[in-house]
Amino acid sequence: MNSLALDDAFHALSDRNRRSILALVRGGGRPVGEIASELALSQQVVSHHLKVLREAGLVSGTRDGTRHLYAVRVEGLAVGKAFFDDFWPERLTRLKHTIENAGAADG
Amino acid sequence: MNSLALDDAFHALSDRNRRSILALVRGGGRPVGEIASELALSQQVVSHHLKVLREAGLVSGTRDGTRHLYAVRVEGLAVGKAFFDDFWPERLTRLKHTIENAGAADG
Repeated sequence: MNSLALDDAFHALSDRNRRSILALVRGGGRPVGEIASELALSQQVVSHHLKVLREAGLVSGTRDGTRHLYAVRVEGLAVGKAFFDDFWPERLTRLKHTIENAGAADG
Repeated sequence: MNSLALDDAFHALSDRNRRSILALVRGGGRPVGEIASELALSQQVVSHHLKVLREAGLVSGTRDGTRHLYAVRVEGLAVGKAFFDDFWPERLTRLKHTIENAGAADG
């Protein structure tokens, strides 16, 4: 498994504002100014978060004329998703059902 | 969405040794000493990582006689998994297929 990529991806995802930025650029490329105004953050703060997200491979930047647009990088997110998919074998799913059913029986 | 829980969960997961500990205690409760020896880490380092994992809700400790056993907390991991499940709507899946097909066509 791609261990350093996971370190960076999870570190990038551990900040609420960075998760908000990801949710915002999920629908397609957006410029820094738009992201900043939508999330009520300074452009400086958004630029910093985009740098962390870009270095973690979770967003990519493209040039559109004079503007830089930032969008979700699906391959980057897939690394994090794969961690949970791998980590979620049948045994854990069964255990979760057992816990939920025990809770329902108590209630 | 449980934002602080996600901050803590992703922070805890951003360390390779902590992910190794999680993988190890996935199969059932293990004492610190066993985890340390299996991963060739000091007990002090493992205790520190277990504290971070416990505070993030990803492992739980139980007492078995004089021993403390640590195991994966499924509900904690579910928070992280839900983030990716929510973040992975049909549109992203289609986009991923498009990218993969484009790659295949190039090859």
